[in-house]
Amino acid sequence: MTGPSRAEVEHLMTEVQESFCAATEELDGAGRFTTEPWERPGGGGGVTRILRSEGPVEKAAVNVSAVWGPTPDRLSESMAAAGRHFYATGVSIIVHPRNPHAPTFHANLRYFETDAGAAWFGGGADLTPVYLSRRDAVEFHRGLAEVCARHPVADYPTWKRQCDEYFFLPHRGEARGVGGIFFDHEADDLAALWRFVGDLGRSLTSLYLPVLARRVDTPYGEAETVWQERRRGRYVEFNLVWDRGTRFGLETGGRTESILASLPPRARWDSDEDPPEGSPERELLDLLRGDPVDWASVSI
Amino acid sequence: MTGPSRAEVEHLMTEVQESFCAATEELDGAGRFTTEPWERPGGGGGVTRILRSEGPVEKAAVNVSAVWGPTPDRLSESMAAAGRHFYATGVSIIVHPRNPHAPTFHANLRYFETDAGAAWFGGGADLTPVYLSRRDAVEFHRGLAEVCARHPVADYPTWKRQCDEYFFLPHRGEARGVGGIFFDHEADDLAALWRFVGDLGRSLTSLYLPVLARRVDTPYGEAETVWQERRRGRYVEFNLVWDRGTRFGLETGGRTESILASLPPRARWDSDEDPPEGSPERELLDLLRGDPVDWASVSI
Repeated sequence: MTGPSRAEVEHLMTEVQESFCAATEELDGAGRFTTEPWERPGGGGGVTRILRSEGPVEKAAVNVSAVWGPTPDRLSESMAAAGRHFYATGVSIIVHPRNPHAPTFHANLRYFETDAGAAWFGGGADLTPVYLSRRDAVEFHRGLAEVCARHPVADYPTWKRQCDEYFFLPHRGEARGVGGIFFDHEADDLAALWRFVGDLGRSLTSLYLPVLARRVDTPYGEAETVWQERRRGRYVEFNLVWDRGTRFGLETGGRTESILASLPPRARWDSDEDPPEGSPERELLDLLRGDPVDWASVSI
Repeated sequence: MTGPSRAEVEHLMTEVQESFCAATEELDGAGRFTTEPWERPGGGGGVTRILRSEGPVEKAAVNVSAVWGPTPDRLSESMAAAGRHFYATGVSIIVHPRNPHAPTFHANLRYFETDAGAAWFGGGADLTPVYLSRRDAVEFHRGLAEVCARHPVADYPTWKRQCDEYFFLPHRGEARGVGGIFFDHEADDLAALWRFVGDLGRSLTSLYLPVLARRVDTPYGEAETVWQERRRGRYVEFNLVWDRGTRFGLETGGRTESILASLPPRARWDSDEDPPEGSPERELLDLLRGDPVDWASVSI
């Protein structure tokens, strides 16, 4: 069975962007996403949508792009199937909540084609808490496992492990967060993958926004915000030092404002005194520095 | 003429560290540098000194290291002269002042040897204003030019240009600051270079601290601090995405707390609305996005 047309995939990316932005604005209740279309000189373009709010969603960025042209040298060196021309479309989502008890959310869906005849999907979704909620981690992972269970082509255990491996800061010996799923270069059954990616894309609001909604009224003070900004420092480190998409984009002259829309609104770097035993800050660090947890199997 | 011994170079690095820390503490008047010695598993170690203060110096890091061992793969791939074993010692300095009208200062001195018989010096010093002071830029550059003029081996015009080229953010199309000097792999006359590097190292306090001292009482408000944190976001981007030393250190398992000691205490990423024409924020951006200025020749 053949996969979708480019137009069908682009349509899905825009649909996911619109529905996620609308649901996020409704939850936030204060801010509105900006909408900035842009064109890529070498072919294609995108729409960058950013919300900065005084409400519960301090910053969110939901970007769609569809770009094509000659394959950049760096890409063709690293992939035999890269071909001489490529086409890529995707949607990426990042939400930085104001309340330190609400986790940061990241997701993206990607589709890639080359004139060498290759085509594949990639994507994923992951959660980065500032303060650990086991319930949030378990429900998020179970939700992802359920979406995967509806599609024989989806492999939750493998993609969960790949997520743990990808979102890891070697220089800190820390996971970025509690993970989720991460898949890339999936090409075995494009028609089945297409159904899965559509299902995942349409599930993102219900996977994350209920988690956010139940945390936005948790009381917090200045100390929790300081810890949040320190953890956001780690998020900056991951994205600028290790994230392949970010680095590839910056090094090949991508659109900086869209690529760096994922950065948190504020970050700080303090001396890394270890938080005291028994503190919630210590609990998070111990978790991130330990072996990955099989969250979908944890009972809550 | 032969160059210095390893012990002589290490002694200079420690001397520069001690004198710069002492002078910075005196100017700050509130905080004290911590002193953390560390050992490198593969050979050598260093002393990391960090000041976080409520005074004029919000954060400063002055680090010395002397490390040796088998040459890391990444280094031997990029340098024919890398040999199988290396020795490297250096001192690095970063000062992030609290007052947005005082520029950030960065300097380092490096010495490298390999068992292939190669040895060279590197280093430099540069200034990163949040608000432009032409006087600061001119006096800083003239001071560097004067140090260079005392040593036939030093080439201020070339090293000034190399500094402009190195401290540039391609993804922003912006210089990091007003530059200074940057030299690397200098090996032609090690004895003469050694005299120059010693002179430069002992000149660093007088090159920067008077600039800092005359800015610490300039009045400022919340808006200036916000702009400072946005500019510090650019500093983070440069160091994590482009700085070769930072990336090499993180990717080869260097000591993270020492490598990232250069990061500012706080940073922010806002939407990049352009500051209005005629504003001091606009003046800085226009400068950083324009051709480099020959500051030593500007009349003030």
